[in-house]
Amino acid sequence: MKNLQVIAFDADDTLWVNEPYFQEVEEQFCSLLEEYLPRHNASKELFKTEIDNLPLYGYGIKAYILSMIETILRVTNNTAPPAMISRAIEYGKSMLQKDVEVMEGVEDVLKNLQGKYRLVVATKGDLLDQERKLSKSGLQEYFHHIEIMTDKQEKDYLKLIRHLDCPPDQFLMMGNSLKSDVLPVLGVGGYAIHIPFHTTWAHEHIDHQIEHSHFLKINSINDIIEILA
Amino acid sequence: MKNLQVIAFDADDTLWVNEPYFQEVEEQFCSLLEEYLPRHNASKELFKTEIDNLPLYGYGIKAYILSMIETILRVTNNTAPPAMISRAIEYGKSMLQKDVEVMEGVEDVLKNLQGKYRLVVATKGDLLDQERKLSKSGLQEYFHHIEIMTDKQEKDYLKLIRHLDCPPDQFLMMGNSLKSDVLPVLGVGGYAIHIPFHTTWAHEHIDHQIEHSHFLKINSINDIIEILA
Repeated sequence: MKNLQVIAFDADDTLWVNEPYFQEVEEQFCSLLEEYLPRHNASKELFKTEIDNLPLYGYGIKAYILSMIETILRVTNNTAPPAMISRAIEYGKSMLQKDVEVMEGVEDVLKNLQGKYRLVVATKGDLLDQERKLSKSGLQEYFHHIEIMTDKQEKDYLKLIRHLDCPPDQFLMMGNSLKSDVLPVLGVGGYAIHIPFHTTWAHEHIDHQIEHSHFLKINSINDIIEILA
Repeated sequence: MKNLQVIAFDADDTLWVNEPYFQEVEEQFCSLLEEYLPRHNASKELFKTEIDNLPLYGYGIKAYILSMIETILRVTNNTAPPAMISRAIEYGKSMLQKDVEVMEGVEDVLKNLQGKYRLVVATKGDLLDQERKLSKSGLQEYFHHIEIMTDKQEKDYLKLIRHLDCPPDQFLMMGNSLKSDVLPVLGVGGYAIHIPFHTTWAHEHIDHQIEHSHFLKINSINDIIEILA
């Protein structure tokens, strides 16, 4: 990791808390459907709808609201009381208005690295919602560039790296998802650091270990300062 | 318009057909609600929901689907048959899968201008959906940069122009909306050309004439070639 030019950060569950809010709403959603389905099944049906909708809707809260509604309609065979759908929309709207909780250590790390590297946000999700969170986080000023991506596959990272005019081996990505923040970056010749978060969306799970000379796992974002020193 | 460096194009109803698809679906939506509301009122209620939701949802088809659902729930006071909501979702999903109809003359114009200027797409809307349309249009190769924006106000154009490292008076924007493609660009010192489309979303209407030394109105995108010659 010598001659690094660019350090890119995932946003959700790396810079700020995200997945716990989805899980909170999923709990409420399962309660809503309790009359029709055991909680575990409601959760499974929602996940199925989300994955089916991914190619059409992409990531983000609007897609999540639509998936909640479609799940309600499907599992109740179009017999759910419409007020149930209104509730799901309210849950979603409250997510879109949540305060942003910046994770511990993040601002110190950004302060320390600013000026030494070009700092970038590389995140999936909804354009407007990610801009809202960035603005509410107060972290915007630290970043040279914000990339909101429809997906995080190798081709997407290649596009980003080319846009930043940075050789892959001078690019470091940090994030909480092995699937989205680590594997594709290693695949295109970059460096990747995994900072696990206590909870991860099922879709981001991978079930094998990663061994790679460009890969590191750290427990806290603060550890990066010593590593780069 | 000497020394132009960058020519930016709006996408929806400038590069390809868009608004007529929304109007088609709006017709279907009004039919759906016919039992509850006269068509004209259904249309007005939908527009009201859309405008109310704009700060939270932004532009694009997912926001539109959610606004259709919320309108159904509101105007029927949560008594609509759930199948009606399923239908609204189907309408929206069919919009997300539509073929892309590139407007007449667009490809010739891009071919002619490519290499002489940096060509850019500057569009509002949903990230995934705009990328899908660009890819389906076959026009991607002509563009140096694609900017998908949450809004098109002066600050948004300033950000884009700064990102492109282009002085405002060497930037030309072309589009069908006076409100989004012309006024804010003139406001930051750029050039703007209006190419009216036969139909415009109510939200994009302005009701005054524009007189400005950096402004032109043309009838067809082809006219730009002679103007720049």
